[in-house]
Amino acid sequence: MVTRLSHFFLRTLREDPADAEVTSHRLLVRAGYIRRQAPGVFAWLPLGLRVKAKIEQIIRDEMGAAGAYEVHFPALLPREPYEVTGRWEEYGDALFRLQDRKGADYLLAPTHEEVFTLLVKDLYSSYKDLPLTIYQIQDKYRDEARPRAGLLRGREFTMKDAYSFDYTDAGLDASYQAQRDAYERIFQRLGLEYVIVQADAGAMGGSRSEEFLHPTPVGEDTFVRSAGGYAANVEAFTTVVPDALPIEGLPEPVIFDSPETPTIATLVEHVNTHLDGEYTAADTLKNVVFALTHLDGTRELVVVGLPGDRDVDDKRVEVAFAPASVEPATEADFAANPLLVKGYIGPWSPTGAILGEESATGIRYVLDPRVVDGTSWITGANIDQKHVHSLVAGRDFAADGFVEVASVREGDPAPDGSGPVSLARGMEIGHVFQLGRKYADALGLKVLDENGKLVTVTMGSYGIGVTRILAIIAELNNDDRGLIWPTSVAPFDVHVVAAGRDAAAFELAASLSAELETAGLDVLYDDRPKVSPGVKFGDAELIGVPRIVIVGRGAAEGMVEVWDRRTGERETVPAGDVRGILTA
Amino acid sequence: MVTRLSHFFLRTLREDPADAEVTSHRLLVRAGYIRRQAPGVFAWLPLGLRVKAKIEQIIRDEMGAAGAYEVHFPALLPREPYEVTGRWEEYGDALFRLQDRKGADYLLAPTHEEVFTLLVKDLYSSYKDLPLTIYQIQDKYRDEARPRAGLLRGREFTMKDAYSFDYTDAGLDASYQAQRDAYERIFQRLGLEYVIVQADAGAMGGSRSEEFLHPTPVGEDTFVRSAGGYAANVEAFTTVVPDALPIEGLPEPVIFDSPETPTIATLVEHVNTHLDGEYTAADTLKNVVFALTHLDGTRELVVVGLPGDRDVDDKRVEVAFAPASVEPATEADFAANPLLVKGYIGPWSPTGAILGEESATGIRYVLDPRVVDGTSWITGANIDQKHVHSLVAGRDFAADGFVEVASVREGDPAPDGSGPVSLARGMEIGHVFQLGRKYADALGLKVLDENGKLVTVTMGSYGIGVTRILAIIAELNNDDRGLIWPTSVAPFDVHVVAAGRDAAAFELAASLSAELETAGLDVLYDDRPKVSPGVKFGDAELIGVPRIVIVGRGAAEGMVEVWDRRTGERETVPAGDVRGILTA
Repeated sequence: MVTRLSHFFLRTLREDPADAEVTSHRLLVRAGYIRRQAPGVFAWLPLGLRVKAKIEQIIRDEMGAAGAYEVHFPALLPREPYEVTGRWEEYGDALFRLQDRKGADYLLAPTHEEVFTLLVKDLYSSYKDLPLTIYQIQDKYRDEARPRAGLLRGREFTMKDAYSFDYTDAGLDASYQAQRDAYERIFQRLGLEYVIVQADAGAMGGSRSEEFLHPTPVGEDTFVRSAGGYAANVEAFTTVVPDALPIEGLPEPVIFDSPETPTIATLVEHVNTHLDGEYTAADTLKNVVFALTHLDGTRELVVVGLPGDRDVDDKRVEVAFAPASVEPATEADFAANPLLVKGYIGPWSPTGAILGEESATGIRYVLDPRVVDGTSWITGANIDQKHVHSLVAGRDFAADGFVEVASVREGDPAPDGSGPVSLARGMEIGHVFQLGRKYADALGLKVLDENGKLVTVTMGSYGIGVTRILAIIAELNNDDRGLIWPTSVAPFDVHVVAAGRDAAAFELAASLSAELETAGLDVLYDDRPKVSPGVKFGDAELIGVPRIVIVGRGAAEGMVEVWDRRTGERETVPAGDVRGILTA
Repeated sequence: MVTRLSHFFLRTLREDPADAEVTSHRLLVRAGYIRRQAPGVFAWLPLGLRVKAKIEQIIRDEMGAAGAYEVHFPALLPREPYEVTGRWEEYGDALFRLQDRKGADYLLAPTHEEVFTLLVKDLYSSYKDLPLTIYQIQDKYRDEARPRAGLLRGREFTMKDAYSFDYTDAGLDASYQAQRDAYERIFQRLGLEYVIVQADAGAMGGSRSEEFLHPTPVGEDTFVRSAGGYAANVEAFTTVVPDALPIEGLPEPVIFDSPETPTIATLVEHVNTHLDGEYTAADTLKNVVFALTHLDGTRELVVVGLPGDRDVDDKRVEVAFAPASVEPATEADFAANPLLVKGYIGPWSPTGAILGEESATGIRYVLDPRVVDGTSWITGANIDQKHVHSLVAGRDFAADGFVEVASVREGDPAPDGSGPVSLARGMEIGHVFQLGRKYADALGLKVLDENGKLVTVTMGSYGIGVTRILAIIAELNNDDRGLIWPTSVAPFDVHVVAAGRDAAAFELAASLSAELETAGLDVLYDDRPKVSPGVKFGDAELIGVPRIVIVGRGAAEGMVEVWDRRTGERETVPAGDVRGILTA
């Protein structure tokens, strides 16, 4: 059935919405695709729903081709399974929690690992039932602290989430690869450029983890890549650890006066003036104090030592200490630990270690992996206005462990030896992830193997943000006049505009629309009788159906214009040729 | 693509689920269609999702044919619009309420009148934009006190809800009729018998209201119908009010001793023994005390007077006093009102009225419409162990109003004069409803009419319970071996069973499955290599695909059996004929 604009539920807007921060949000609202209901919560209007359905169908096709079966879980789930895996607490404020009339706890699910695991446990018991991959396309909830950028970061959003179940590691690898391949096909069909980067397995546990990022300067994720093929997001990047150096014969530590040098820059200037030699920030050891809050609510101070030419990267810090939350130490923390002299902190003093679990303060001390044994450093002496030089790692101080929190720089060597990395930005569009046995262990999902032995199932988790992808496609496909949809997801295949004032144009436009619909195209027909051609063209450009057919002055002679929305090219052709052109 | 049972996500169960109260619940769980997650909350497995999608597609088709456009609203909605219309409070405990991280109030929407109204207000402003009907197929939430009967009364359920917008009453009538017609087509395509009954407009406000009930003895709704075409649910049934009688010359009231007669039965026995004449319960006036709790939390006693041969009907009471909630008066209520003598309550005393807003008690007194002026009654004298006879309505007592709470009986006259009614039971499967201007008034939805004057929009609301319908279809279509789906909603068109042990059966079954799939049929192929034919047949019967093809012993000769699941008939035919038989 031809959709006629005179009846269709659509109102395009002249003004940008006041709260739109990004192009996709601005255009999707103006062109009548979505409408805000609450912060990060949107209603889908008919045009938007059509695009969303097309994206979902592409995903369904490829999931089916990958041997995955569709199921559908409720958004409203009981607390218990999430309690067992710890996520009821771990999710913190990002989880929407509620109670029913009897006071039982529920949540609006942000992802469904727990209940998929329990479902399979409920129904399957033998290795013969595996491998299995099941998925859903479903509305999820996350109470973002700052919902923003329209659909790019909403609080209610649609995701395809798939979960695989295997009883061997090799099986998991195969299931993982099948989903990874399906994702490549999905993004190719959607016309979305992507980079597959290593991602941190993080708080989810598990082993292999890769993100599909769409590279764009406005992306909120940073990733690194080498010419030799390495790619990772910054959280997953690992430092190439230099070899340890011989300690024997190195000079002993020397405390020196360093008035007014609480920063690395002032310290480097000071030592270059007052000590022999040429120093840079890389010769100094910076000590940064963090306060962690653990899941059980306890607070712990941790000091990180890293070369003074590196900053800490907030995202890497977050991942390194997860599931604890991290903030910089406060004045109160320093007041409570008088042995820490702010601006002059260091791990060592002539009377013994200051940092470390075995030290005077008992504060955990962790190092950047570059601080290998035998390296010599200028750092704080834990005395106001004094530093120490020739402090040697592995001789004068040691750490409770190593931690990857230093910022990654252009030119840093890729961990796989494939050369120096460059930095780029991207938006996450998918994530494939080996959960391993974490959820199956927690929830008791085991099957009998070939030998009749109970083995724990190993799982993968695979997510695509449907509404996010829609927004990214809109973000990438527009010009100053409006949206320009790729053919694969356009709300209609063709937009026919009756642009004349005489009946002939309307008659031809109507019959042409009917003919195109019969040929299997989805047709939007602008049949509004009293709207000027200029307004109709403006609406057509804003809505962004990739091919527009204008039936105007030439209608009496049977001539129409075929307009390519993307290139702007218009071609006058006989109406009888349109069907052939559009279905070619 | 042929779905192969060896890989499909399905596990049929031998045992009935412990909590299954009804056949549909039992079979849908056992056959692997749904799985319980929490009370009244279910996950949809692949088979169930397929049936649900088919029902939804039928609804979409008919909504499209009725000129309605699909949109999609979030389940998570802010409190404010529901506050404006009063429904935030009115819904009581049935509403799932929650707060976000900032403490803002949200709800999981039970229906979406408010936000549809606001959307149209947001985008439309002229009569030229109307009429408009928009709908969604969406997961809704209602915190039922007693979720039960599987999908028949869940707490999360899928509904199609449509809303129409017009600026004239005639327009609303036309929009209403279009949805009503669409509903008839939908139920016809689903093979669901239905009766359209008048329903109470109730707390929703508005005027015309009809329910589609599926007549079944196990239905939870009672409705009445006359041979002359009247049909209504009991809440909407209205009493035919008898004419008032002349009061002049009637005997005066007489108080008489009636020891130990607190019930109608004991009273009737007493008067037939001690008074002249023959009396029945219909000659007595029963006075029932209710305690209402109003939305503002205040509690009010109300007494209902009705002929003693009628009981109060709980559903009619609920509707009559909505939005207040109703319960029987408690001992505490009687203790607080010593003028009410339990078992001997009446509206009158020799010293003046006892019941009524102007009376000694000040308690509101409402009457059944049959208690017309000039009728004479035996009723309580408000003195322990005493009643009064010859008490005449309109002379000795009057009411603050009339109320329809008496039970409806077989043989009661239909209000439209179409004869006596009979009672039947049914399950609600749809509801069409003229909301009128209630929501538009509350939320300020007005448009400019032809004369440039602002007029309030009038609305309709139209709902179908998708998951409920699925359960009802399952409830109606089964036998002791399992489900038997109607063709229009079956999860697959055909179920091919490879029932032999030799390769020939599997080869023929596989090639036949592929051929049928190519012919446009959805094929489930039971290719499980080590499962006995008996188990496969049992699963096929349980799953309930209406047509089963058995490829077994005759395979080597190219012969197969076509099995009609409903009739049980089996016919042996050449494999080459199957396609023709199934697509005929």
